[in-house]
Amino acid sequence: RCDQCKITFYVKAAQSSLHGLIHLTPILTSSSLDKLAGHRLFFKCELFQKTGSFKIRGALNAVRSLVCAAQGNREQPKAVVIHSSGNHGQALAFAAKVEGIPAYVVVPRTAPLCKKAAICSYGARLILCEPTDESRMEVAARTVQEKEGVMVHPNQDPAVIAGQGTIALEVLQQVPQVNALVVPVGGGGMVAGIAVAVKALRPDIRVYAAEPCNADDCYRSKVTGELTPNRHAPNTIADSVKTSIGQNTWPIIKDLVDDVLTVTEEEIQQATQLVWERMKLLIEPTAGVGVAAVLSEQFRSVSQEVKNICIVLCGGNIDLGSLAWLSPAGKEANGN
Amino acid sequence: RCDQCKITFYVKAAQSSLHGLIHLTPILTSSSLDKLAGHRLFFKCELFQKTGSFKIRGALNAVRSLVCAAQGNREQPKAVVIHSSGNHGQALAFAAKVEGIPAYVVVPRTAPLCKKAAICSYGARLILCEPTDESRMEVAARTVQEKEGVMVHPNQDPAVIAGQGTIALEVLQQVPQVNALVVPVGGGGMVAGIAVAVKALRPDIRVYAAEPCNADDCYRSKVTGELTPNRHAPNTIADSVKTSIGQNTWPIIKDLVDDVLTVTEEEIQQATQLVWERMKLLIEPTAGVGVAAVLSEQFRSVSQEVKNICIVLCGGNIDLGSLAWLSPAGKEANGN
Repeated sequence: RCDQCKITFYVKAAQSSLHGLIHLTPILTSSSLDKLAGHRLFFKCELFQKTGSFKIRGALNAVRSLVCAAQGNREQPKAVVIHSSGNHGQALAFAAKVEGIPAYVVVPRTAPLCKKAAICSYGARLILCEPTDESRMEVAARTVQEKEGVMVHPNQDPAVIAGQGTIALEVLQQVPQVNALVVPVGGGGMVAGIAVAVKALRPDIRVYAAEPCNADDCYRSKVTGELTPNRHAPNTIADSVKTSIGQNTWPIIKDLVDDVLTVTEEEIQQATQLVWERMKLLIEPTAGVGVAAVLSEQFRSVSQEVKNICIVLCGGNIDLGSLAWLSPAGKEANGN
Repeated sequence: RCDQCKITFYVKAAQSSLHGLIHLTPILTSSSLDKLAGHRLFFKCELFQKTGSFKIRGALNAVRSLVCAAQGNREQPKAVVIHSSGNHGQALAFAAKVEGIPAYVVVPRTAPLCKKAAICSYGARLILCEPTDESRMEVAARTVQEKEGVMVHPNQDPAVIAGQGTIALEVLQQVPQVNALVVPVGGGGMVAGIAVAVKALRPDIRVYAAEPCNADDCYRSKVTGELTPNRHAPNTIADSVKTSIGQNTWPIIKDLVDDVLTVTEEEIQQATQLVWERMKLLIEPTAGVGVAAVLSEQFRSVSQEVKNICIVLCGGNIDLGSLAWLSPAGKEANGN
């Protein structure tokens, strides 16, 4: 079987493995956003997912896969080591707790307090590093050795990709009339998992990736036909998609994602605030990326046959203290 | 029939009248809030209701009742006049639009921009007054005369009380295992409507009113057995419950509400933020009053037989610009 077939199989297996451990998140609708978009929109509410984002799907599937494999011949991992201060870190910490394995999370000492607190609340131990990639990798590698742990890549691990793909299986059940899915892309684990599942089961449905103009590696990769990572650390309020797509997600994105839609920082901010105001859903700006894409000028050229669109609201983990950017005073201070 | 019987009848009639015009709002749950409360909690999500709060139930029922009555013998009202800058104003504006009647909303010129904009977006016309009760009443009375309009009291109008009571009919269907409902109280329209319906259909279920210590007229009325309005304009972040209970809601509250729970401003703020962080629901602080009541020290004395508790999250209309009170900087500036 080809790699994509394998992942499709893994997505089905992941759904069984996760059954009863995660939430079947609801689909919500909004007539006022429908009007603005000129499409019928369905919002897959992964912000209500355990740990506040879809990341638990991939993380839990990966940890359970490790434990399962260990029951065969390999030794069970003694610890899980994580070098993400974001949603993946929280998700892995929770997954390790569910499976009864200690978790160590390497976070930059500058990470938002709420994220550190959330990680601790799942029983994981924080290991602080400097806010540079080098320090983070070095500290993580040392911790792996010391604790005899394993690391789970947040978006290139096949079990993670398969876990995220379970979102698609749910959407196909919940909204069978869907014509397109819109999925924010950072490392590409979610959009790759979703694309594999959708194109295997319902190849008529389009899969769009959405990303900030300021972190448009996926867009540039598709245009050039070559994996083209972001050259500098991107500057975007959609902080969960600052990473670039990678070796495992790129081939899937290349073959199965129909198009990549890019949006400006202003569009992300407006779309995020719109969801807060109209839908009363406290999404994080990364979830606003997909909404912004569907509301953008560019999207008006999408065929009217694409009537029913499902936007994955990927998460709701924001530092409430950072909401100052919303207030008129805050805006002026930032020069916006 | 007694007054309460009549309102019970009206609640049933209101449900038919509103059918298909408002949302059947979902019930959400949160295992982390269950743990904090030591009860199984069910959140009735009226923040997802049309116009962003439950108020559309009463407003639409009242306007439809006026139109219905007119089809009999009375003349149809030529306009609806509103003197509320809050959720009731928005709801009445929407209701008038649905019924094709012009709406005039008298708002203090100091009202939050987002509320003014929301009212305009429903096609109502704003009539500005000074930010005093006298000016508001005077301008409203003049507008009624000039436009041959009618005013609908936001919480003492029997059709409004009956409309709010439909929340209870839905909850009894959605969560038949419920042992208690917790309802924020301002003017008392919602808690009275709910209490009438609950005690008529399931007298075993308790109905608790929740209110800020800083606006505790309902609590003091229950304690003294006499309608005891707030003597000064209360100072609370729960701005939708600054009003006092009145002539029509007090007798119902006196007879049918089991207890009144009061909470401090700090408790309201913490509970509101907790719902934002854990449930990702952008409730307004008034909705946080009910949550705070269930999480309070006082509530621990409630019998453990009261297992399943439904909290009405009454609305989600907040001025996002005002969220500055959340940020550490904002807190310091406020001396908290």
